[in-house]
Amino acid sequence: MDGVRKSIKILEVNMVDCGTMTEYVKVIWKDLYKFTIECFTRIGVPAHDAELIADHLVLANLRGVDSHGVIRIPYYIEGVRKGYVKARPEVRIVKEGAATALIDGDDGLGIPIAVRATDIAVDKAKTIGVSAVSVRRLGHVGMLAYYTLRMSKNNLIGLATANGPPFVAPWGGSQRIFGTNPISIAFPSIGKPIVIDMATSATASFKLRLAALKGEKIPEGIALAKDGRPTTDPKEAYEGILLPFGGYKGYAISLAIEVLSALLSGGALSKNIPLHPSTQGGFFVVAINPATFREYSEYLNDVNELIKIVKSCPPAQGFTEVLLPGEPEDRNFEIRVRDGIPIDLGTWRLLIDVARDLGIEPPLTVQ
Amino acid sequence: MDGVRKSIKILEVNMVDCGTMTEYVKVIWKDLYKFTIECFTRIGVPAHDAELIADHLVLANLRGVDSHGVIRIPYYIEGVRKGYVKARPEVRIVKEGAATALIDGDDGLGIPIAVRATDIAVDKAKTIGVSAVSVRRLGHVGMLAYYTLRMSKNNLIGLATANGPPFVAPWGGSQRIFGTNPISIAFPSIGKPIVIDMATSATASFKLRLAALKGEKIPEGIALAKDGRPTTDPKEAYEGILLPFGGYKGYAISLAIEVLSALLSGGALSKNIPLHPSTQGGFFVVAINPATFREYSEYLNDVNELIKIVKSCPPAQGFTEVLLPGEPEDRNFEIRVRDGIPIDLGTWRLLIDVARDLGIEPPLTVQ
Repeated sequence: MDGVRKSIKILEVNMVDCGTMTEYVKVIWKDLYKFTIECFTRIGVPAHDAELIADHLVLANLRGVDSHGVIRIPYYIEGVRKGYVKARPEVRIVKEGAATALIDGDDGLGIPIAVRATDIAVDKAKTIGVSAVSVRRLGHVGMLAYYTLRMSKNNLIGLATANGPPFVAPWGGSQRIFGTNPISIAFPSIGKPIVIDMATSATASFKLRLAALKGEKIPEGIALAKDGRPTTDPKEAYEGILLPFGGYKGYAISLAIEVLSALLSGGALSKNIPLHPSTQGGFFVVAINPATFREYSEYLNDVNELIKIVKSCPPAQGFTEVLLPGEPEDRNFEIRVRDGIPIDLGTWRLLIDVARDLGIEPPLTVQ
Repeated sequence: MDGVRKSIKILEVNMVDCGTMTEYVKVIWKDLYKFTIECFTRIGVPAHDAELIADHLVLANLRGVDSHGVIRIPYYIEGVRKGYVKARPEVRIVKEGAATALIDGDDGLGIPIAVRATDIAVDKAKTIGVSAVSVRRLGHVGMLAYYTLRMSKNNLIGLATANGPPFVAPWGGSQRIFGTNPISIAFPSIGKPIVIDMATSATASFKLRLAALKGEKIPEGIALAKDGRPTTDPKEAYEGILLPFGGYKGYAISLAIEVLSALLSGGALSKNIPLHPSTQGGFFVVAINPATFREYSEYLNDVNELIKIVKSCPPAQGFTEVLLPGEPEDRNFEIRVRDGIPIDLGTWRLLIDVARDLGIEPPLTVQ
């Protein structure tokens, strides 16, 4: 368990470096993509699965979601070696109907399994209008937006949820019971889709460490100390318990995600999931086909109208513009596709170690 | 418009009275139920629809959700008389598939139409495992938990959303663009279902008025003054703009509810909905059948296990217990079924006026 805690600590420290980004190298996304494929094929992951994992992790980096990018490579590999996740699982569709499916992931690396679930949801929703697919026993699925974007590319509204290792207390409680239980929803539009992707915790562990390093206090109401006391000390909070975002309302959503992700599929409750960056509980996707309800072009026009209303809303004091969910990530994407992906030196050193260990070349850097 | 604003003001003032509950009468729920049916049949609502409206409003009062209880009677009647909603709409199923339906409510009183949509969703989900029904052009649908509870009684997980007249700014914005856009999710369990039902605004208008009456300040971050300045003055906030709960994350959910409720159905965007307590935008329900994924008894056992984990979580400082979503309402229900429903004198006077106006007897009071 101590080894696992150390892994998580290193992951978070690296993310902190990444957040401040004082020292980094830059890598062109294609080189990072090829490198990632090689890493996973070397440890026995089938080629197609390795391509999906590489596509996913690199897209996370391109969107600026570095905590779910290539920093996961060493931890996914560690997860395979320590037996948390399998490189070649025997994934099984346990039950299937016209609009639903239940998948058992055989504790495989999560991303390829979650993609398979998403694609099944897409096929069914295209035919029948709405579908729900539930997955148990799979590893870390990464950035949920990957799956909802995949659905939106098929002109579907996509929803995805997952539960994970315990970090978050229920509202009014003082024990880690829920994962950071994220939710993503993507709506296709004429331009880029509107993409929501968020944890239901008020903050992330690595942000607490960043505040501790900077000697800053954290806001009230986002974390508790180990003994259940509210705290504004980031060190106490880091060793303590995260709180749900938005008080009892965020707690309710976190709880809903727990049931949808774990209990529909028979996956592990967050409380019972081993703490490792390669683990997950259950995964749940819903796809909705707007064209089943009305002309797809009418739906698109109305989404466009709503986008215009939101974007033309005068900013409140202290703001310069109103952003749509996913807009900051879209902006990162454009910059990073063009200029390369910055990788903090802590993560870079881990990737060099992985390359040496597997006997492959690290990706070229441009800076 | 001034008349409408006055209506809303009276509604809110009454809810404030109700919140403080210094002076009230008590009515047995059955008497209130009969009275409500009579009110609506008198203004031309078909008997079955009137029964549904009565069942809904009285259940809201029994659960302690007084803002969505019989206080709505005078406003729904006013809505019919002013032409916002129809007593006898010609509701039409515009499109229907094995798992989906689109309903046009012909601007009828919302509750019976939303019940019809829910029942269609139930029938489809029982057969095919998951269903989604979308409704445009309908009046105020009331307390969303009414519909999700209806689904949970059929051993289904229910989700319902609605958009409504504009009160809430997007995160970073300073204009009323979204309704308080509520969401409800109910999970069937061995005992009472877990029922989430919440607005996605950080607070309700009537709570601002209550704070103003008491001369209290409101917390930061829940509302803006008219000019977009953050404010802790409840009067400024009341005349200003509500903010979403939980910052940008709550905003994202509010936006998702706007699209799901209004844009799948072609209903009105919140910004374009007339401000009246009888109006709504669109309504959206999803039903999920756990038995399609696994043995229903296994699902129930796991929900029970989760409930035990949450309820046995040691309380944080300042709390005495951890509550499940819906637990406070269940407790109100037990007390009010037994002792009668307290109705504040402001609302009571409005009901007496309605009774006189329609030539019917007001309900008997027990206190």
